[in-house]
Amino acid sequence: MNGIREGWFSEVNALWPGQCMSLEVEEVLLHEKSPFQDVMMLKTKHHGNALILDGVIQVTESDEFSYHEIGSNVPLNAHPNPEKVLIIGGGDGGMAREVCRNPAVKSVTQCEIDELVVNACKKYLPNLAVGFDDPKMNLIIGDGFDFMGKHKGEFDVIITDSSDPFGPAKVLFEKPYYQLMMEALRPGGIIASQGECLWLHLDLIRDMFKFCREIFPVVDYTTVSVPTYPSGQIGFMLCSLNPETNFRKPVRTFTDEEIETLGLKYYNTEMHAASFVLPHFAKKVLEGKAQK
Amino acid sequence: MNGIREGWFSEVNALWPGQCMSLEVEEVLLHEKSPFQDVMMLKTKHHGNALILDGVIQVTESDEFSYHEIGSNVPLNAHPNPEKVLIIGGGDGGMAREVCRNPAVKSVTQCEIDELVVNACKKYLPNLAVGFDDPKMNLIIGDGFDFMGKHKGEFDVIITDSSDPFGPAKVLFEKPYYQLMMEALRPGGIIASQGECLWLHLDLIRDMFKFCREIFPVVDYTTVSVPTYPSGQIGFMLCSLNPETNFRKPVRTFTDEEIETLGLKYYNTEMHAASFVLPHFAKKVLEGKAQK
Repeated sequence: MNGIREGWFSEVNALWPGQCMSLEVEEVLLHEKSPFQDVMMLKTKHHGNALILDGVIQVTESDEFSYHEIGSNVPLNAHPNPEKVLIIGGGDGGMAREVCRNPAVKSVTQCEIDELVVNACKKYLPNLAVGFDDPKMNLIIGDGFDFMGKHKGEFDVIITDSSDPFGPAKVLFEKPYYQLMMEALRPGGIIASQGECLWLHLDLIRDMFKFCREIFPVVDYTTVSVPTYPSGQIGFMLCSLNPETNFRKPVRTFTDEEIETLGLKYYNTEMHAASFVLPHFAKKVLEGKAQK
Repeated sequence: MNGIREGWFSEVNALWPGQCMSLEVEEVLLHEKSPFQDVMMLKTKHHGNALILDGVIQVTESDEFSYHEIGSNVPLNAHPNPEKVLIIGGGDGGMAREVCRNPAVKSVTQCEIDELVVNACKKYLPNLAVGFDDPKMNLIIGDGFDFMGKHKGEFDVIITDSSDPFGPAKVLFEKPYYQLMMEALRPGGIIASQGECLWLHLDLIRDMFKFCREIFPVVDYTTVSVPTYPSGQIGFMLCSLNPETNFRKPVRTFTDEEIETLGLKYYNTEMHAASFVLPHFAKKVLEGKAQK
């Protein structure tokens, strides 16, 4: 059931036991092992090109915009002055594209560990990798831990666009990584970090809330609908060094006309607020841990 | 890739081309053909028991609550006095369970065409079929079209809990069916009808908005996260005969304490409002057609 069989790619994984998303494949465009992971690019029949890392769907052209628009604009618009942004991971370029699109951002540094991913996406996902060409961008191939260890107190917003908590990305869901992000922030800085799915990983998210609360005065969680992700939804952990931050009420709002001009397809100001409303079963578990 | 192979049930269908959800199966509890459809009940490994009709997942015990709680409480709490309710379809009993749970409801009539489905759910989905045992309930095995044709002006709220728009359920997504529901309503009545997925069927939903607007003064659309449905999301068309209805602002709200007492797991008053916020791409297509 795993991998490609009879024209379908299937995504079996212990992180979402007993359920599996499959995409119909027209052509395998690339399949190589990098020093870090198994990298596959598929031309699918109905979802555009799709990047698969270690057997897990990272992005498809059909629905990547929702993830990238929420993961960028929610933290950026909760910061009064998000001039200097750091992206960790995000080798497809989609997060860079959205961060650069936000008019409040002046410079973006991105640290991605796997050059093969970047090159594959430049070739096969040009609508995402266009982010790397933005004049605001500075792309560094390297390890995020190392990079942040050498850049303390530099960034207004740090966004982690990572794969799931197994293998090399597991550490990105643990307290030392969040501590390192905190130290790389300027005063009043904000982070947004890939936060898995309420339907699948509520225990993990509850534990992340707990350690984030020990590091940051404000912690919250936003969700977004992404059809090709497990259970069709993913979230981001949001933390702020500014005790006045209210993630749910953006300090910068876009009118619908501005949304059109910016070319956004999922995010708007109503969606910003709605993305924080949790199913009751999740609200109960995280309640008291989210900001008031 | 379709049906059961090597311990996995897969759901290939032309309504969601090129993508497929699979569930790992422990045991096939029942597989029979009724006069209306192919009926299968699976014991899955990680999602409880699952009802499959004509090869399509209808409910799993793991996530059915979100669909049923939104599909019932959003229309019921938008009506000032939803005493008499009609459910069309919903043979698993989950919608009946949620409608009966709402304290404003006094009597519920349900018209389900397929007795085999009801009996299978009584045996294998007792936590859903418990709805049929409620003292408010009156279950009729029969055709919803016939039933409504003989019951004009009788109901405050009508909820259609149907399968997808192919085969026998196709007509439930067309104007004559909505006309029939309108005629079966009391003055000021409200309907909620299964409305497919914004990510997959935006053209269908746009067309439904158009004909609903010709029948009802108020039309809106609510969405809910259901991990085992295609793209992880489904919606309901909402229509009201009362021009004053604002679906987004319920006339009856539940405190979190009441949510606990009622035993709701997904719906709460914040979620009621948030369920109407559409991704910008969908808002644009439906805009001007939704209520202000």
